[in-house]
Order: sequence, then C-alpha cells, then structure tokens
Amino acid sequence: MSTCVDLNCDMGESFAAWRMGDDLAMLDIVTTANIACGFHAGDPMVMHETLSQARERGVQVGAHPSFMDLVGFGRRRIEGESLADLEKQLIYQIGAIRTMAEVVGHPIRHVKTHGALGNMAAEDREMSLAVSRAIAAVDPGLIHLAMPGMQTSLAAQELGLRVGNEVFADRAYADNGNLLSRKLPGAVIHDPEMAADRVLRMIEEQAVTTVSGKRIALAIDSVCVHGDTPGAVEMAAVLRRRLETAGIEIRPMADIVASRASSGIQQ
Amino acid sequence: MSTCVDLNCDMGESFAAWRMGDDLAMLDIVTTANIACGFHAGDPMVMHETLSQARERGVQVGAHPSFMDLVGFGRRRIEGESLADLEKQLIYQIGAIRTMAEVVGHPIRHVKTHGALGNMAAEDREMSLAVSRAIAAVDPGLIHLAMPGMQTSLAAQELGLRVGNEVFADRAYADNGNLLSRKLPGAVIHDPEMAADRVLRMIEEQAVTTVSGKRIALAIDSVCVHGDTPGAVEMAAVLRRRLETAGIEIRPMADIVASRASSGIQQ
Amino acid sequence: MSTCVDLNCDMGESFAAWRMGDDLAMLDIVTTANIACGFHAGDPMVMHETLSQARERGVQVGAHPSFMDLVGFGRRRIEGESLADLEKQLIYQIGAIRTMAEVVGHPIRHVKTHGALGNMAAEDREMSLAVSRAIAAVDPGLIHLAMPGMQTSLAAQELGLRVGNEVFADRAYADNGNLLSRKLPGAVIHDPEMAADRVLRMIEEQAVTTVSGKRIALAIDSVCVHGDTPGAVEMAAVLRRRLETAGIEIRPMADIVASRASSGIQQ
Amino acid sequence: MSTCVDLNCDMGESFAAWRMGDDLAMLDIVTTANIACGFHAGDPMVMHETLSQARERGVQVGAHPSFMDLVGFGRRRIEGESLADLEKQLIYQIGAIRTMAEVVGHPIRHVKTHGALGNMAAEDREMSLAVSRAIAAVDPGLIHLAMPGMQTSLAAQELGLRVGNEVFADRAYADNGNLLSRKLPGAVIHDPEMAADRVLRMIEEQAVTTVSGKRIALAIDSVCVHGDTPGAVEMAAVLRRRLETAGIEIRPMADIVASRASSGIQQ
Repeated sequence: MSTCVDLNCDMGESFAAWRMGDDLAMLDIVTTANIACGFHAGDPMVMHETLSQARERGVQVGAHPSFMDLVGFGRRRIEGESLADLEKQLIYQIGAIRTMAEVVGHPIRHVKTHGALGNMAAEDREMSLAVSRAIAAVDPGLIHLAMPGMQTSLAAQELGLRVGNEVFADRAYADNGNLLSRKLPGAVIHDPEMAADRVLRMIEEQAVTTVSGKRIALAIDSVCVHGDTPGAVEMAAVLRRRLETAGIEIRPMADIVASRASSGIQQ
Repeated sequence: MSTCVDLNCDMGESFAAWRMGDDLAMLDIVTTANIACGFHAGDPMVMHETLSQARERGVQVGAHPSFMDLVGFGRRRIEGESLADLEKQLIYQIGAIRTMAEVVGHPIRHVKTHGALGNMAAEDREMSLAVSRAIAAVDPGLIHLAMPGMQTSLAAQELGLRVGNEVFADRAYADNGNLLSRKLPGAVIHDPEMAADRVLRMIEEQAVTTVSGKRIALAIDSVCVHGDTPGAVEMAAVLRRRLETAGIEIRPMADIVASRASSGIQQ
Repeated sequence: MSTCVDLNCDMGESFAAWRMGDDLAMLDIVTTANIACGFHAGDPMVMHETLSQARERGVQVGAHPSFMDLVGFGRRRIEGESLADLEKQLIYQIGAIRTMAEVVGHPIRHVKTHGALGNMAAEDREMSLAVSRAIAAVDPGLIHLAMPGMQTSLAAQELGLRVGNEVFADRAYADNGNLLSRKLPGAVIHDPEMAADRVLRMIEEQAVTTVSGKRIALAIDSVCVHGDTPGAVEMAAVLRRRLETAGIEIRPMADIVASRASSGIQQ
Repeated sequence: MSTCVDLNCDMGESFAAWRMGDDLAMLDIVTTANIACGFHAGDPMVMHETLSQARERGVQVGAHPSFMDLVGFGRRRIEGESLADLEKQLIYQIGAIRTMAEVVGHPIRHVKTHGALGNMAAEDREMSLAVSRAIAAVDPGLIHLAMPGMQTSLAAQELGLRVGNEVFADRAYADNGNLLSRKLPGAVIHDPEMAADRVLRMIEEQAVTTVSGKRIALAIDSVCVHGDTPGAVEMAAVLRRRLETAGIEIRPMADIVASRASSGIQQ
C-alpha cells in the first residue's frame, strides 16, 4: 500500500453579507471540505455555492455542524443544552446539508463537529454518543471525521460508524492526545515549513509526538488545515507541496477510509 | 366515489422557550399538519416533537417553509430577495424537515408555503416557479398544497408536481380567487357554525363563492383551519363534527391526491 | 419604621409573534418589573408596551439584561465569553432600555441580571465586577437588584452601586445562601400559601432559613415572584394578599432602597 | 465663508466573527462615521471598538439604524412593518448606541438611516415622519443626515430636526433627485478621479447634475463615501486629496450644520 493522506479544511463559513476565508483558494489545495450548516456560520446560499465549487474541483464534502450559536461562531462552550436537544439540532443540520448536497449532485460523505461542540464532545462520552447517534440516524454510511483516541472517535466506533482520523498541521499536542490549549506557548505553529516537517514525521511514524515528547501511535487519514487564519492559504499550499514532494499521495479521506475498510485493515 | 376531504393546519410554530397554538389538541382534529422548518418559527426540538406527535396520531405531515424572517414570523413581505437565493432557502428548509421526518419514521408528503411567501407567490409566476423548482429538486414526489387557480398551483403543475387544492374555512374570497384582505370587513369568519356552513357548501358545490357572489369551480382536497387564533380548536372541532355529520369522510390530503391521480381524475 | 417590602417580577419576555406570561395581570400585583432587553427575550415593541403598561400602573421598572442567547432564552451557561465583551453587551442592553424608558416617560431605576448570567455571576467575582462596571458606566445611580451575600451583590457594593436585596418566594435555599438547585427535591415550592408563609417568616426575621435549618440574616427589600410558570398569577396574588393582611406595606424596591440610604441604615 | 465639506462613511458593519470593510483606514480619511447599531450589522463589541477608534481620531459619530434584518444586511425591502413598530425599533437602536457612545466619551451627533430603510423612507412621507419622530424622541438635538429634497429630509425639517445634506461621490442621480438605480448603466462610478471631478463640481455649484443633465440646487454639507466596496479606501483617499488640493476644508458635518445654524443661513 502506497502512503496516502487527505487534506481537510472547514469551509462555507461566510454568512449573509459577510465573507470568511478564501474558500476558492483552499478548494484548489485540499481534498475534503467540512461545510458549515447555518448554525454557527453558513447559510443556504453559501452552502450551495461551496458545495457547487467543491463538486467542480472534485473535493469531497461533509457536514460541519455546531451548537446553535451564530453570535459566538460556535466557539462558546454552551452548558445546559440537553443531549436529546443536541441530537435533534445535529439531525437538522446534517439533514439540511445532505439534501442540499444531493440537489447539487455531490453527496456528503462525512460529518465533522465544529468548535466548542467538537472540543466538549472530545472529552465527554455521553455528548459524543449523542453526536454519533445523530449521524447514524441520518445515514449510518456517513464517516465521522475526528481526532483519534478522543471520546468522539470512540463513541462513533461504539455505534458502528466508520471514523476518519485527523491530525492538525499547525497545533501542538498535549499528553492526553488532545490539542494543547491555544493559551499555552508553542500551541500554534505559524511557520508553514515547520508545520510541514511535523506532518511528514507524523505520517511517516503514524503517530503524533506530544509536547512532552510522548509518542501516541495512530492511523492518520487526514490532516486538518485552517482556512480562516492569516497565511492559511500559504500554509496549506506549502504543506501540499511538501507532501507531494515526499511522494505521499493526496487523496480524499472518504476514499482512504473506504479502501482501508475493504482491505480489512483495522483503524 | 364517496366524498372525502382533508383538514390541514399549520403547526410546530413554537420557538425556543416560546409556545404557540395548542398543537396537541389540533392533532386530534386534523388529518394533515404543515410543520414550520425553523426560518419563521419552529426549531429542531419543536420539529421533532411535532413530527412524533403527528406520527402517533396518524396525521400526515409536510414542510411549511418561509422567508428567512424569524422576527417577522414570516409575515413581512420581503422584497429584493433573489429567486435563486429563495430557491436555496427552500431546499434547505425542506431538506432539514425531510430528514428529521425520516428519522422520526414519518416521512413528509407535501410542502405548503407560509405567510408572506405564500401570499407573494400566489400572485407571482416567477416566484412560484422558484418555489416549485425547490420542491421538485428535493423530491418530485412531494405534493404542493396550495390555493387552486393561483400562480403557486399553476407553477407546480407546469413543473409536473402534483397539487393539493385547499380552501379556507374562516376566510372570505375575492373575485380573483384569492383571499379577501384581512383589512376588509367580513374577511374573517369568527363563528364556527357559519364557517362550517360555508365549507359544507363549498364541498357540495366543489366551488367557492366570492364576496360578490361569483362562483369559482374547483376540486377541493383540503380545508385549512388555523391553529394560532383565539377559538381555533373549537372552530376546527365544530368543522370536523359538521363534516362527519354530513357523511363526508375526513382523510389525509396526500391520500386523496394519490387516489385521484390513480383513478385518472383531472384536478 | 413600618415594615415594607417590594414585589418584583421578570417581564416583557414575549418576543416577536410569541407571547410569554401574563404581564398585565402581574403588573396589577407587583411593584417592580424587570424588563427583558432583547437579547434573551423581548424586542423594541414588547419593551415599549411593557414600559407603558408599567407606567400607567405606577410599577417601577428596571433592565433585565442577559447573555446574547435568544435560542436558549438566556438559560444556557455560556463559557468563553470574555468579560470585556460581556460588559459591552450589558451597556448596549441597559442603554437601549434606558432610552426607551425615557421616551415612555418612566425611567428605569435598577438592573437585575437574567438567568444563566445571574447564576454564573452570583458565584464569580470577576464576572460580577464586569456586570457592575457596566451598570456604573451607564448610570451610577442605578440600583443593582440581586441576592444578598452573593458575588453580584458584593461586587456592586465594592463599585459603589446601591443594591436591592431580593429573596425568592417559591425557592428553597442552600446553605451557601444560593438557591437550591431545581434538580433537588423540595427546591421549588408550588403551594401559594406555603410560599406566603415562608416569605412572611423571612420578612419578620429578616433572614432566610436554608434547607438544613441554618439561618442567614439579611435585609430584605424585595420578593421575587415568577411570571412565566403555571399558577404564577395566583401565587403572586396570594402572596400580596397575605403580606397586606399581615400589615406589611407593598412598596417599590427603589423607594425602599432610597429611603434606607437617606435614613443612614446599613444594608 | 470659506468652503468646507464633510466626508461620511458607514462603519462598524462587522458582526460577531465576521469582518467587513477596513474601518481603521477609512477613519483616517473621513470626518464623520455612521455606525451600525446591531440590527443589520454591528454588535456591542464592534460598536464599542468603532466608537473608540473614531474618538481617538476625532471623527464624529452617529447612529446608522436599519430594519430588523441581519440576514438581509438591511438591504431587503420589508413591507408590512407598522410605522409604530418601526419607530420603536429606531428608538431602541439609537438608544443603545447613544449610551454606548456616552460611555466611550464620544457622544453621537446625528442619525443616518441604512439601506432599504433609507431608500424606502426617501420616497415615503409617513415612513420618514416615523423615522424623524424616533430621532426627536431620543434627542431633538440630533441631526438627521440625509439626501436633500427627499421625504426623509423634508420630514425631519417638518418636525424641527436639523438636517445634514449629503451627496454621493460614486453614484449618478435620477431626475427626481434620488440615486439612479444600480441596475441602470452608469449608475455607479468606479473611477476615483472621475468621482472626485463630480464631487468638486457639485460643491462648486452647490448642485447635483442628474443623468439627463438637469441641475438641482442644494446646500452640500457632506459627501458619502462607501467603505465596503472594492477600492473603497483608494476612492475615499483620492477624493480627500482632491478636495484638499482644491482648497476645500474637510470638516465634520455636525460642525458645519451647527455653524450654518448659528450664522442664520437657511439650508
């Protein structure tokens, strides 16, 4: 098996009159797009445009649902939302984008949770089970793209969902396998070449090395690049070039997960 | 063919902490529910609850989409929205509720536009075509429930959608077949027995009689009753009782439309 | 000094097409209204109507600001909102209602925080300081109506604001002086006469008795009654009648606080 | 009297996580900022930031209120909003920013309506009277910045408000004195030098020349430049340079209107 990896990016996070990120530029670089569903960002017009642009470029698409929190861009941790309610909010969002994607002729293949929802679920088994129940209720064939080892990923597997394993190009890792808090020094890597170095090593070793030097083995399906930070396009472009130069094939996550499943490889 | 008719009502128009109407009482009376999709009213929790309650009672369900206008409850006429944008907004709403309904195990069978969108479309061929394109894009098997003779209904037929014909129990008609403006005297009928008298006559004659006495022939599939006005439940209950007493079978609109289609009767 | 106390109630929590509570009935019973400012509930029309109705009945008014969380009705605990941002959100809300109240000719006299914001601030000194800074920035003459002994109240005094002390008619108290969690048995009192008994004893003793029997002394300026629960109007009416029967004068909180200040009594 | 004119620009139209325009660059060029109030754009944090930046640069500030229409950025024409409701929506918005501006230490001096509200009011006397009533209710000392000759301006004068007269740097005029519809050819001027030529001639002649060559005399207090179009900053910078080169003093609108009033000059 030749080495291959996916590049994924959150997209479609413009809203109404407001633009965010350079989605067209990122769509020329990545192979998977996680598209906002209108609760923290995005709206029907932005979703349709992003799905259409992704289709034209052969970029695979998935839902990027969130808490109901437009004003907080889904970054505020919301406490006191019942899990039963959260489940319905996710069904709604995934349902809306799934239908829109069918109409565009470019069906969604996965779900990746956004912002505070993703962060909270990663450490909360019950919340992660609610997320996975929502995905499975809409379509058990959808892949859950998540950080390996976290509750999100474990719950998905427990409910029989296929998971895609992602690592972050520009973030340092804590010893528990989660991302190091942005508040800590060295948590965010700004230099594209340094980020590329790290990613190449992760892929070679199929492991992440944490801030204290601990190595955590994992199967890497996808590398997440950010689309809304300064220098985002350059960071992603450098990473893609470095991966290609190293002979690593850039391939959509859903295809990687599907071929891994068909070849009987354990994730 | 024995005479039969459907009773439809807009529902699921609560939002967040706020309740509207007595949906449970109405679900015991009507046979079709038009359920808000979150843009003028409703939210994922309300949608799920309403779909579930309708399923338990065997009440058929459909999407009740609207302009993006929560603060105006979809009643404000919005000018300057492009039809291409409107189409995407409708796909989003119908997609969200269609998926939610599938998850609940009670698929939607129709679409009925809400408030100002319905009123504007009734008189605007281009807007009606956009509405019907959105419905057909999501599922060409969905029925468009609308007032017969209006642009909404004509556009639906032009695009090959099946239509359900509705009349209003508590509203007087203008000579162009549209509802008489609420601002005019006699536009709204408040007395349940008088409303029932009118409906019985409409069904018997398969025609509406306008404010000036003009008679407009039409096939009546469904009678719309309101759920959010004072006395709404009593109005609907009286109507149902009077219909049953007159030997008219109360039957879901989608079934009526389907059997009409299979028997080759023109609408 | 004859004994007197205020009755306060949250109001103006309707929104757009949705009604909540029976504000007119409550305005005939209470002497102080805390009016929503549009962030968790309320809108300019509801605010104007509520202010006008309060003015006609001589009910004193104040701002009832909240987190930016309409969909959660301000009840969701929002983490990750910076205190600097929160301060500006409060200035905005208090500023909007203060101006509206001036236009109506019935100026606001106080501020009382809503829902999760109030609960979180009660236990968070830094958040409480941010709240009090916002109040003082708009108008240092505004009274902060809050539970005595909590951080909210302490911060207000630290910044030189006058505070109004409120107790709850229908809630049991924990030993730390905070309300007993609604999830615990006995936390909410549903019987109006029992609630009235408790309030009379609190006023007589100028103390609350906690769930374990501990007595916490405090000066009581106001009793909070709820407006949006079943039986709310009856609960409030019974309480008012019992207070009057016991010879306790029902008087607006701002007047009580003002006269206490002018008489040199320590709160 | 030496010739002087103001440059005004709409600002503070970022919202939550989304940026719009380059406010800092525009604040270095213009002398008056119309700041969004949270209904079509802006939020408490953006408002506070924009007011603070304007204060630091000595740029005068005013309210830029709109319909309640975030998703439409206030550009959708909303029909069916009662004027009484509109009046309260404006009081709320002006009240919120007026208080915020006082807290920042940089009081607002004027009001300018946004988008569809401005366009509709310009041709609707009753709506314009509602707008002016709202301004006068909050503070009769506020200036109404508007296009001269339109209903907005006439209503303001009728209610005793001072008006500031603005022309547009980059727009052609119809014969009725209103802006030529953007849909017509030549309606928008993209070349900065050409726009500057036009403005200089308008100021020299104290008149606008319409698309058919008709000349409409008017006193020009301010020139509106856009902040959210491509090339906006360059357009504004060129205009300012050309005005200064021509010996025209760039001075805040409110000062111009105040000095005109004190010198007894009719507007």
